[in-house]
Parts: sequence; C-alpha cells; structure tokens
Amino acid sequence: MASESEAQRALQYEQTLMYGRYTQDLGTFAKDEAARLRLQEGDTARPRRPSELLEYTQGRCAPCRVCALQCQRFLISKVGEDWVFLILLGLVMALVSWAMDFAIATCLQAQKWMYGGLDTNVLLQYMAWVTYPTVLITFSAGFTQILAPQAVGSGIPEMKTILRGVVLKEYLTLKTFVAKVIGLTCALGSGMPLGKEGPFVHIASMCAALLSRFLSLFGGFYENEARNIEMLAAACAVGVGCCFAAPIGGVLFSIEVTSTFFAVRNYWRGFFAATFSAFIFRVLAVWNKDEETITALFKTRFRLDFPFDLQELPAFAVIGIASGFGGALFVYLNRKIVQFMRRQKTINRFLMKKRLLFPALVTLIISTLTFPPGFGQFMAGQLTQKDTLVTLFDNQTWAKQGISDEFEYLGILEAWLHPRSNVFVTLVVFILMKFWMSALATTIPVPCGAFMPVFVIGAAFGRLVGESMAAWFPDGIHTDSNIYRIVPGGYAVVGAAALSGAVTHTVSTAVIVFELTGQISHILPVMIAVILANAVAQSLQPSLYDSIIRIKKLPYLPELGWGHHEKYNVRVEDIMVRDIRYVTLNCRYRDLQQVLHSTKMKNLPLVESAESMILLGSIERTQVGALLSNQLSPQRRLLTLRQKVLSEDGHRLSDSSIRFQISTETSSGTPARPALRKPLKPALKRVSSSPADSPPAGSTDHTGIALKSLFCANATTEPTEAQGTAYHKVKRVRISIVEEMILGDKMTPAEILEWEEQQLDQPVDFSSAKIDPAPFQLVEHTSLHKTHTIFSLLGLDHAFVTSIGRLVGMVSLKELRKAIEGSLTGKGVKVRPPLASFRDSTASTTEADTTALHQLWDRHQHHHMPREAGPGGDDNDDTTKGQRDP
Amino acid sequence: MASESEAQRALQYEQTLMYGRYTQDLGTFAKDEAARLRLQEGDTARPRRPSELLEYTQGRCAPCRVCALQCQRFLISKVGEDWVFLILLGLVMALVSWAMDFAIATCLQAQKWMYGGLDTNVLLQYMAWVTYPTVLITFSAGFTQILAPQAVGSGIPEMKTILRGVVLKEYLTLKTFVAKVIGLTCALGSGMPLGKEGPFVHIASMCAALLSRFLSLFGGFYENEARNIEMLAAACAVGVGCCFAAPIGGVLFSIEVTSTFFAVRNYWRGFFAATFSAFIFRVLAVWNKDEETITALFKTRFRLDFPFDLQELPAFAVIGIASGFGGALFVYLNRKIVQFMRRQKTINRFLMKKRLLFPALVTLIISTLTFPPGFGQFMAGQLTQKDTLVTLFDNQTWAKQGISDEFEYLGILEAWLHPRSNVFVTLVVFILMKFWMSALATTIPVPCGAFMPVFVIGAAFGRLVGESMAAWFPDGIHTDSNIYRIVPGGYAVVGAAALSGAVTHTVSTAVIVFELTGQISHILPVMIAVILANAVAQSLQPSLYDSIIRIKKLPYLPELGWGHHEKYNVRVEDIMVRDIRYVTLNCRYRDLQQVLHSTKMKNLPLVESAESMILLGSIERTQVGALLSNQLSPQRRLLTLRQKVLSEDGHRLSDSSIRFQISTETSSGTPARPALRKPLKPALKRVSSSPADSPPAGSTDHTGIALKSLFCANATTEPTEAQGTAYHKVKRVRISIVEEMILGDKMTPAEILEWEEQQLDQPVDFSSAKIDPAPFQLVEHTSLHKTHTIFSLLGLDHAFVTSIGRLVGMVSLKELRKAIEGSLTGKGVKVRPPLASFRDSTASTTEADTTALHQLWDRHQHHHMPREAGPGGDDNDDTTKGQRDP
Repeated sequence: MASESEAQRALQYEQTLMYGRYTQDLGTFAKDEAARLRLQEGDTARPRRPSELLEYTQGRCAPCRVCALQCQRFLISKVGEDWVFLILLGLVMALVSWAMDFAIATCLQAQKWMYGGLDTNVLLQYMAWVTYPTVLITFSAGFTQILAPQAVGSGIPEMKTILRGVVLKEYLTLKTFVAKVIGLTCALGSGMPLGKEGPFVHIASMCAALLSRFLSLFGGFYENEARNIEMLAAACAVGVGCCFAAPIGGVLFSIEVTSTFFAVRNYWRGFFAATFSAFIFRVLAVWNKDEETITALFKTRFRLDFPFDLQELPAFAVIGIASGFGGALFVYLNRKIVQFMRRQKTINRFLMKKRLLFPALVTLIISTLTFPPGFGQFMAGQLTQKDTLVTLFDNQTWAKQGISDEFEYLGILEAWLHPRSNVFVTLVVFILMKFWMSALATTIPVPCGAFMPVFVIGAAFGRLVGESMAAWFPDGIHTDSNIYRIVPGGYAVVGAAALSGAVTHTVSTAVIVFELTGQISHILPVMIAVILANAVAQSLQPSLYDSIIRIKKLPYLPELGWGHHEKYNVRVEDIMVRDIRYVTLNCRYRDLQQVLHSTKMKNLPLVESAESMILLGSIERTQVGALLSNQLSPQRRLLTLRQKVLSEDGHRLSDSSIRFQISTETSSGTPARPALRKPLKPALKRVSSSPADSPPAGSTDHTGIALKSLFCANATTEPTEAQGTAYHKVKRVRISIVEEMILGDKMTPAEILEWEEQQLDQPVDFSSAKIDPAPFQLVEHTSLHKTHTIFSLLGLDHAFVTSIGRLVGMVSLKELRKAIEGSLTGKGVKVRPPLASFRDSTASTTEADTTALHQLWDRHQHHHMPREAGPGGDDNDDTTKGQRDP
Repeated sequence: MASESEAQRALQYEQTLMYGRYTQDLGTFAKDEAARLRLQEGDTARPRRPSELLEYTQGRCAPCRVCALQCQRFLISKVGEDWVFLILLGLVMALVSWAMDFAIATCLQAQKWMYGGLDTNVLLQYMAWVTYPTVLITFSAGFTQILAPQAVGSGIPEMKTILRGVVLKEYLTLKTFVAKVIGLTCALGSGMPLGKEGPFVHIASMCAALLSRFLSLFGGFYENEARNIEMLAAACAVGVGCCFAAPIGGVLFSIEVTSTFFAVRNYWRGFFAATFSAFIFRVLAVWNKDEETITALFKTRFRLDFPFDLQELPAFAVIGIASGFGGALFVYLNRKIVQFMRRQKTINRFLMKKRLLFPALVTLIISTLTFPPGFGQFMAGQLTQKDTLVTLFDNQTWAKQGISDEFEYLGILEAWLHPRSNVFVTLVVFILMKFWMSALATTIPVPCGAFMPVFVIGAAFGRLVGESMAAWFPDGIHTDSNIYRIVPGGYAVVGAAALSGAVTHTVSTAVIVFELTGQISHILPVMIAVILANAVAQSLQPSLYDSIIRIKKLPYLPELGWGHHEKYNVRVEDIMVRDIRYVTLNCRYRDLQQVLHSTKMKNLPLVESAESMILLGSIERTQVGALLSNQLSPQRRLLTLRQKVLSEDGHRLSDSSIRFQISTETSSGTPARPALRKPLKPALKRVSSSPADSPPAGSTDHTGIALKSLFCANATTEPTEAQGTAYHKVKRVRISIVEEMILGDKMTPAEILEWEEQQLDQPVDFSSAKIDPAPFQLVEHTSLHKTHTIFSLLGLDHAFVTSIGRLVGMVSLKELRKAIEGSLTGKGVKVRPPLASFRDSTASTTEADTTALHQLWDRHQHHHMPREAGPGGDDNDDTTKGQRDP
C-alpha cells in the first residue's frame, strides 16, 4: 500500500505543470480514487452516523454528541481551506524553528560550559573544545547517511528543481524530515560555520508535503498536484520567514532562489503563512521570557535623525563591489573544493570507505584553528555565530582614531580585543579564516546552509570598512552645524546584505537585513551595495545554489543573461533536433521496437503518417514499451495456442483472421464495450506503477548516493538510467517469456521466435495506450528568448517543433541549455550575428513554409476527390456537411 | 510615416506574449527593417566615416575627431544595454517626480499665501479658497480632454491590461505623457484629495516607451517587443519607487497590481531602476537643501526598544479588519458614484454637453466643505495632504487621558485642535468627510490616483484607534518594571498600510509604509493588519483597479478565489464552445464567406478536412478577409477579362483550366519562385496596416472617449468594434469593386455578379495567407485551474481544444471569465459538485476518446493501403522509409 501510494504520488508530481497532458491513466486513477472515497464513505461516514446516533440516543449526552459530530463535520469541511493549511504549516514550522534554536543554544551552552570548566588545563580544554564538535558533526553525518542521504546539504537547489516540476525521489518524506531536523540541530550545535536557512526551506517543504498528506485523510482536495506545488512555494517562504523572523524578506528570498516565473497568488499565500510563522516564532520567545516584547532578532540602535552622510555613499559602493568579487570567489572556492575531493582518486577512495572521516577531519581542523587560547584569540574564536553578529552590528565605534586601547570593551565585545594587535588585524584575520572555513565546512555531508556564515563574513567586512572610515574621519564627514560621527555598525549591516546577496544572487537579502536588525534607515546604502554586488557576482559566477545544481547534475535551465541581444536572434530552427524518431499511427510493432532501439527520448511524437507528418500527439516511452511487451506477452501467446488447438481441424484459417480476432479482443471497439473495460485495467496498472518500480533497481546502494554525489561525478546519472529501464523491461519480459516457455510451454524457442516475428509484423493497436493529445508545440521562428520563457513558465522539458501541423523537429531542455550557454559564452551553438536572420534566412524559410503548405494543399487536392467518391466517407460527414454545402 | 510606425508598433504589442505565432507578415516586416537599417548604414555611418576622415585629416584635430568618433561608436554600442536604459529611465523619472513635487508644493504654497493674505474679509477668503482649486481642476480636466483623453484616471488598470499583452491605442505616446504630467500637476496642486502614485506608474511606462523609441534611433535592439514588455514591467516599479522614494515597496506594489505571473528576471530590473530613481529623487532634495541627508519622506521617530506590547496586537487586528470593510466600502462607493452618474440620463446629458462642469462642481463642493473658517475647522481643513500625514504620524499623544486641553499643540498640529470639541470628534469628522470626498474626487476626469487619499484616511483611522487606546491605558499596558506608553503614531502607520492595502488588494503597502516612515519596528502589527484587511476586502469586493477595469470594460481575466475547490473539478469540456466555425484546407471561397458571415471569432481554426478535423493551425479573420477580397479584386477580374479577350477565338476553354492558370499566378509554386515574391507584398502590407487604419474610423470623436467611458456604458466597446471591421472591409472592397466597374469597366453588374459567383466556387489558395501553425491547444480534461494558469501565464485570449489532433472545441477569455465568475458566485456555469467528474464523466469521455482514436486508426487502416498502392505517394517517402521498412 505504501509503495503504491508512493507511486501515485510520484506520478502526480511528474505531471505537475505539464499543462495539457491528459492520460487515460489519470482517468483510471480518478475512478479508483472515487471508488475508494465512495467505499470510505460507505465504510465509515454513512453507516457510522446512524449507528452512532442509535447508540447514543439512548444515552444522556445525545445532543452533545450530535453537536460534536456536526462540529467535527464542519471542521472537516474547513480543513480543505487553504488558510487552515497555511496556519497549520506556519504553526508547526514556528514550533520546529523555536525548538531547534533552543536545542542549538543548549548545545552551544554545553560546549562553553565544558570549555569554561576545564580552564585549569589547556590540553584538556583543547580536547573538550575539539572533541565536542567533532562528535556532533560525525553523529550528524552518520545519522543523515543512514536514515536519509537526501537530507544532506542546503535543500534549496533541490527545491528549485522540484518546483520546476521534476520528481526527486524521497526528497519530501518523513524519513528525510527527521534526518534533516536532527542532523541540522547537531550540525549547528557544534558551532561550525554553518547556516540553518537553506535547510529550513527544505524542512518547511517537507512539512508542507507531510501535512498535506495528513490532511488528505480528512478531505480529498489535497490530492491535487497543482495545489501541492502552490503550497510548496508557500512553504519555502515559511522556511525562510520563521528562520529569521523575516516574513517579507522570506517571501522574496524564496521567490528569488526557487522560481523563474512566479504566480502572484502564491505571493499572498507566502505572506500569510510566513507572517503567522514569524509571529508565533517571536511570541514563543516572549513567552519564554527571552524578550520583553516582539522585536527583531538582531536589533540595532542606530541614530534615526542622520543615519549616514551622502558622502559616505562611495564607501558603501566599495563594499558592494568588493562583496561582489568576494561572493563570486566563495562560490568558486566551494565548487573547487568539491571538485578537488572528487578528482583525487586515492583520497576519494579512502574517504568513501570511511565516510565519516572527512566530516571529522574538517571539523577537527576548523575547531583547532578557532581554539580561543590558540589561534582563535586573533579571530574572536570563542564567539558563537549569533554573538559575533550581535557584536558586529554594535552601535559603538571600536577603533576611535585608530588606537584600539582607548576603547572600553564591554562584555562579549572583549573577544575582538587582543592585547598585542588592534581591531583591524583581528577583523582581517577573522574574515580571511572564516572565508575558507565556511567554504570548506559547507561541503561536509551534513544538513547545512551557507547563508549565515556568508552573512557573518559580510558583516565583518563591512565593519572593517566602517572602522577604517571612522578612523579616517574621526568627527564624521558632515561639515555643517552638528557633528555626526560615522556608525561602523551601519557598514556591517550593508556588508552582510551585500555579501550574502552576491553569493545567492538575490536582492532580497536587503529586506532580510532590515527585518533582522529592525531598522530600515540604511535602505539606500544597502540597496546600492546589494545591487552592485549582484551585478559583479552575476557576471562572474553562477549563484551558490545554481552551482550546487550543476555539481549535483540536477536538471536545470540556465537563466538568460542580462542584455545579451543574441537571444533575440537565435531561433528554434537553429537549435532544434531535426532527425527525430517518431511513431506513426499506421505502424507495426516492429517499427515500435526499431524506434525504442534507435532513440532514448522519453516522449515519442505520434504522427499521422510518414508522408503527412501531421503531429497527433505524444506517447511516452514507457507506453510504447508496454504496448510491445503486451503484444509479446505469454498470455497472448497461450491464447493464440489455445485458439490454434480449437481450430486444429480447420487450420486453413488465414493469418489475417487471427489478427482480426486478436484485435477485437484487445481494442475497445463498438461491440461489447462494457465487458471490454476490464482487460484494460491490469495493463494500465502495471504501467502506472513502473515509475516506482524502476528507480529502486537503478539505485541499489541507496545509502551511498549523497556521498557519491558529492565525490564522484558519475554516480548521479539517475535520470538517464530511468530512461533506459523501460526498454530493458521489455527485454526482461521477453526473456521471462522464453524461460516460462522452456519450463511449462509446449512451443519450442524456434516456434516462439517465429510467433514473435509474426506478432511484430502486426499493425499497432494504440487504443489501450495513453496518448498526450496536445503536446507543446513551437514553430521554427520562435526566438530563443521566447522559448526560454515558455520552457520556464510551463516547466517543460521538451517541445515539438511544427510547421502547419507537420512535425519538423524537437527541442529539449538539453538543446536549450546548450544554446543559452553557447550564446552566452560564444561557443557550442552557432550564434548568428545580429540581424543575420533578417538578411538571409527569412527568404529561404518562408519559401520552405509556403512550399510545405502548398504540398499539403496539393496533396489534398489530389487525395480528397477520390476519397469523397470512395467508400471511406465516415458518418462524421453529416454533422459538418452544413459547413461545406450551405 | 508616423502613422505607419504607429501601425508597426501596434502590431508588435499585439504579438506580445503570443508565444509561438509565426507570421509571414513579421518576416516581411523584418526584411523591411533589415533593408531600412542597411539603407541607414549606407546613408549615414558607412559613407560618413571616410568622408569625415578625409575632411578632417587635413585639419589639426584629426586624432581628436577619430577618438570622438570611436567614443561615439562605443557609446552607441553601449546604448543597447539594459542597464543604460534603466539608468536613463530612473534618472528621467526622478527628475520628473522631483520637478512635479516642486511645482505642486509651489501651487499649494500660492493657495496658502492667497488665503493668508485675505484674512481681513471672510468672503474674499472663501472666494480665493474655492476659486483657486476649481480653476486648476477645470484647467486640468480641459487640458487632458483636449490633448489626450487617455491620460485621465489612474493608469494602473490600463497598464495591467497592456502588460497582459493587449494593445491599447494611444496609451503610451508623447501626447499622453505631456497631458498626464501637466494635468496631474494641476490636479494635485489644487489640494483636492487625489494621489500621484497610480498616474506615476502610467507616466513611467510612457517614459519607458518613449525612451525606447528614442534609443532605437541608435540601435535596433529596442524594436523587440518581448524586451519592451519587460521594460514596461520595470517602468511600473520605477513609477511607484520614485513617487514614494520606496524602491522595494515600489517593485512589490507594481508586481502585485499589474501582474498575475511575474518573471523573476524583471524583478532584478525593477529593483535596479527603482533604487536608482529613488536615490536620485532623494539626492535632489538634499542638493536643494530641503534635507540634511537622505532620509525617508515621512520620517517617524518611534522608540526602538519597545515599539509595542504583545497585548496591543488585538487592537491592531481590529484596525486591520475594520480597514478591510472600509476598503471594500470605498471601492463599492467609488463604483456606485460612477454608475449613478452614468444612469442618470438627464444629468448625464447635461454634463456631457458641458464637460468641465462636473469637475468644477465637485471641486466646489469639496473645497467649500474644507474651508478652514467654515466646516473645515472640524476636520483640519487647512492642512495639505502631506502636512496631514506628518501630523498623523507624529510621535506625541494628542489626547492624554481623554482631555484634549492638557496637550500643548505645536505648529501645524494646531489644526487638529478645536476649542469646542476634542481630538476624537475632529478625527471622526475628518475620516467620514474625507472618505466620501476621496471616493467622489477620484471620479473626476483628471489624471489622479486614489492611493494617497486612502492612505491618509487609513492613517487617521489608525490614529483614532491609537488615541483611544492611549486614553484607555494612560500608562501603557505593560505591567513590568518600565512604563511604556502607547504610541498612537504607530497605530496611524498600521492603519495607513491596512486601508491602502485593502483598497488595492496588496500586501506590499506594508513595505511602502516602512520605506515612507523609515522605521520597520512595527513590522508584525503592520503585516497582521494588512493581511487581515486583505482577507476581508478580497472576500467582499474586487480591488479598486479591477473595479475600474470592469467599469471601463477592458479585457481582463478574474483571479481565482482562495480555496474554492470547484476550480479543480470544472474542466475545459464543461466550459468550451463546441459549435465553432472552422476553415478546411480544401474549402472554397464561398465557404470562407460563409464562415465570416456566421461567426465573429478573431481567429479561425484551420483543419485538414471536415471528416478528420485535424487541427493544422489558426488563421486570422483579417487574413480570411484579405483572401476573399483578393479573390474578388478588380485586378483579378480585369486579368480574367484580358485572358478572355486573348482567347476570344478559342472560348471553349474549360473553367478548370482558367482556375489552373489563376492558381499558378497567385500561389508560390516551385516554378518562377523569385518573381512571385512581389505580388505577395502589397497584400500583406495592407493587412499589416489595417489595425492602425480601422480604429480611427471607429472612434471619430476622439476627444470624447474618456468622458464617455466614465459616463456611458456603451462608449467603450472599442475592442469588439475592431473585430467587425475586417469583414466590413471586405464588404467595402466589394462595393468599391462594383462602383469602379460601373465607372470604367465593360462588365455589367450582372456579369460581375456571375463572375464573382464563379470565383467563389474556386478552392481557396492558402499559400499567401499567414497561418499560425502552432495555436495553443488544450485537452478536454484540463482543469479550470490549469486553464486559468495557462491563459494568464501566456497572455492568451483563446485556445483550441483538441483530442488526438482533432479539433473539438474552443475556449476564449469570455468563456473562462464566465466560468470563473460562475464558479465563484454559483451561477452562469454549471458547477459540478466535487468529485462529480470522478463518478460519471471519466467513463464516458475515455470511451469517447478511445473511440475517436480507434476511428482515426481504422480510417487509416482502410485508407492507407490503397494510398500506398495508388499514385498519391509523395517523394517525402524516401526520407522516412528507413523508419518503416528497416
């Protein structure tokens, strides 16, 4: 049951965003569903009511019971409403977020306590400082590895892929949820430079998926896949929103990192859920007496009347540009570390064998370097991430006039003070060390994000620039009446937004920063820095999430660059595959076999005939395989045998009459239609469960996938493997036929082969196959820009190119990807010079089109007359005759 | 020239977002364009360089010139970049916004000065107070009316329609721009309760359109219509951004009010341009010494450490819910006023005659009521909108302990004080009076928005609640150590965001409020209130912009409601039109005439034949008209006559041979192809210019449209009028044929009629018609939800419904609109109960589908054999034979 519902869910997600796909299978599913509901109704609700009423009318509290029942029914009817779902989601996520924060704080407290308690012996202190995070990280890695390797990493790249309509196995299950929550808590509790924001997006999505599955027990509306996708989009917003208590920034950030096109109606949903979630998250803090009232997480207290001078803007711009380069470098470094680990075969093999060695090693190195009495004293090593941010956003100027000694360090600010160096050195060391540490730490196979570490580095960089400015202009730049000193904390805010914006390629980090600090006075500096950082980073490197998508080889569609005009001049005809295999309506089973042999396309076009090439629809590869295996099935063979036995005396029966009998058997022709419904079902059922059957075969050592995907380039070819299974299945079926025949059948292998050859020569009966009657069509002249828009709008992975109904080619995600990357880098695809298409191609192509139409028209002129006169005229004619002979 | 480029632009917009439409016409246009560019190149750049170089090499500053030329060329190459365009747009809009603010401030200053100078005589004071705004508003209305009636009103509804891909005539021209800027300045300078935000969206869009036309003089990239739409989306963000100096809120607000689906890449563009624009806008204020540094427009100074207590949240929620009802009431009132003015025939006729009377009358009433020594003393009548907001957001509590006398009113705050009443009365009167005044004022036919008036009313309402709370809890609610008093200014901020959010159905007013006040400390109350207000308002009324769209009868697609599950269960087959007219490939001209007579569809489906019904493409109505008129053109008749004369002796020539000759004449068959290119062009040109030609004929009294659209329901049927013109044109052509014949031809009318009847019996030659070979197709089982998504994603206005290639129906915007509004209100369309489709329809429809496929398959079984044997086999066979006989 579980695996079957899995299969159904997988099927639903697969159809997500594939607009006009009508499948008979879905119809069957719907009927099953209706039957199930009716059964349920019959089983539970309908009979329960009278019986319960009967039972309780004798009792005293009968009215109460009736009332309760009515309330229950009312609640169940409300459960289907969107807002109920969103409130529940927000509530659950706020609780999860708060509980995790609490657990993480306790973990960090424990480490501090251990470290503080052992201050008599430095060695013991070191041991405690190093062992604690190592144990936690190793546990996290191991636990995740064993329970659900899909929980590793940020989760945003995967969510981006899922929201595009791609099915990723096991990414939204309870197992992954548990693994991610526990793994993340341990990982963050270790004090490593890791973030919780990316994983929270994943956790919220899983929460939404689980919640919708749970609520579907009460009502059938949660079964709808379009709705589920919309809820997932809202869940992403909730994830960011309740992580930072930043509802607006959360919604915008989730839109920017997960979507290419965004439905404004989801925006509303996201706001609703994220606000509720952030509200509950902060109210929990108030109830827990952590705060007096609801305020921002990292509240700042910059002056409001004169936040910054106009002449400070160049300094903010410098922060932005430098952050842009820094962000690109971070993404590059992160990718290089992963690629280096993969290339080094010997290291790799060793690490693969002992999977937990790599996390332990990295943790050991990082925690050794941050050991406060050791090197950590130069980089404020004793501060947790949260404390670091609080100190960096501090209102005071640390280095008045460049002499650090003047400054009175208070409380946790002391960490930044070193007796033998000044604040600038500490900040520079902190930035440099944290930079590579964060890039390295985020490659550890535990659930972790990179947003927070990058945010901290950015804040430190901003603080550095701010302190320098404060040292340079001790009395501020403003020369009028009042003296307004420079606020280095403001620079830290700008730096944090800029660097995190550069790494993630988002502008909404600006909004997150406002919501985190509770002040919006620096809006213009922040916006300018974030935009400059984005402009620089986007021209150098992909975003961190896109980089991970490429490393993990998830299906993706690159963004169109900014202002590259070639994209308007490259057309579909330049990039499409012209030589495609197709299935004709009048083909034989042998042709199907041929097509399956010669191509690996997941969807095959169905055309009217090889001459007309009129596109009728598309048929899935698995469907073709099913048709073939059905034709060659032992059942049919046995049937034929039995028929042969029956007509033993009269074996003059011609081949064609057998074929006739068979075709009436399997096709749903006019006679005896109700009886013929039955044999269709098992065939369809087998097909519908095939997507669930095949992947387990392809991924036998399931536990290793995540590690493999980080270390070996070849391990992540799952999607292509799945393509092959359909044909292999056909082969397997054939082999099993042979085996069975040898065991119990009376036909010799030679006879079977002969029988199969016979069967292959029969014309295909498509009546039992599910055909998508309206696959997406483009025309040759559609520009690359438009094609990209349509593919990302509708989440397509392929489209057929037609010319007046005739199939002329096909464009898949692969070609489009090649074309876009080619047009941006100048290689790969023939990029035509601007206006080239105006000069030469129009003449030739319009001619070609006209000729094609003319041929079609001519053909009709020739063909139609005899057809009308001949016996082929259908009854359909009657209904439309008025049109032609008025 | 102007009208021709107009026509080309109109054509471009028309094709906007219509994905796969390939038109030969576009090809021709592209070729013309290429020729023009080549010519330009030849005319200016190419020959100028050598000649200039020759000219200046003799002179002294030859290297300078060469350098300047290279710089120029570099600049021109950069002009095509997106960011250059966006910076220019931001710069221009910031200057426009600042200059307008300056002019408005001067106007208001002048009124104040006049009012102050005449304080000796109340009557004279009253005359000055009333005359000044009346003159300004009357001038604004008259000026707009004369120059460009399209400039009337907000502009956001029109931009929403334009971004959906609909062409609105004259909405983005220089004339409208001038009319809107000057009209808006005068209207706001009058001190009426009008806003500048909606018109600014329109102004920015016009600015973008004009700028892109201007820049297209330097490079050809601005001709691309997809790019223009993207730039318009960015321009909307700039409009809001530079109006409020709110870049983030501007982007979000413009997304919410103009889009259904939003491309994240435009988001980036919007942020870039809006930030730049807001920056320049505020820098201008600093340079003008209005401000010391860059700060928010309506800066608040609420305390940061304890912005509000948790127990105040219910009060904020009350503000939100009340604002929701208030917002819905405002939209309702606004609509009712417009409808009332339209219904009252006598008033209407009188007002239509004296168009400027209505604005003058309304202004008179409103300004009389706000006259400070009169009724205005009870509603702070002397304050301008800006001053009102500043006082409402004030930090102090006006009514300490409910006794207004205790409070020391300072400066402009005095306006709220009345010796014989208290603050509460003043606020209540202000809210009530301003409410209907704003609703009335926004119906005046001048360029004006409703955002700001609503914002002020919301702030006043919030203030009222805040003051009440302050009076109720004089020492705050918080009971712990510190006393935190209630801040009524914070309530005003919440109220402003909530009411404006309710009227516009947006959440981003929250962000606008943060950016306007420069404080984000009230984020949770604001978000909660805005969301509640939206929830209430959305369930009661459409947004103000959607309401205007319906009043103006612009094409629109209603939003799907929240949580209405029926939308998943209504399917295309329930709402589609089954009885549609179509054109077959083998039809005769008479059939075309028949089809044009019998339907008003803009796009006709082209099917293979009436039996197969395989959809080959769609053909525009104008194209069909052109085909017909071409067939019956006098030129062809004269040609026939001449041929008849030539073959006078041998008039035994059969009809068919004439037809043959004619068909080779007009079709572009294989022989003599290059020569046949020519006759295609004039026909296509006429068609391409027809969208520009027809509307002037439909709208003769151009100046009256905007007023009419406000007062008469029938005047705004422009879009449907345009549909009819194509056929009327055909008729006109026929009439002109008859006339010409009478004048100079030798054929009698009877002969001509006979000839025409003959011509009508000939088969249609489609080779010269432009056919969209990939019209959008849906299948019968597509859900309403999916259909809505696809229509709004792709900006479709119709889609054909197919079943395995066969045309079975059609869905247009109208049906969809009916279905959605029906499913929401429970009337209009048959709304099936949930799961009804699971129970009954699947069985019947899958059967029908299977039968259809089977028939098709059967037909092929029967037909293909003889066709293969017969002489009809094309040469195409060779290329695909490998497929069939391996």
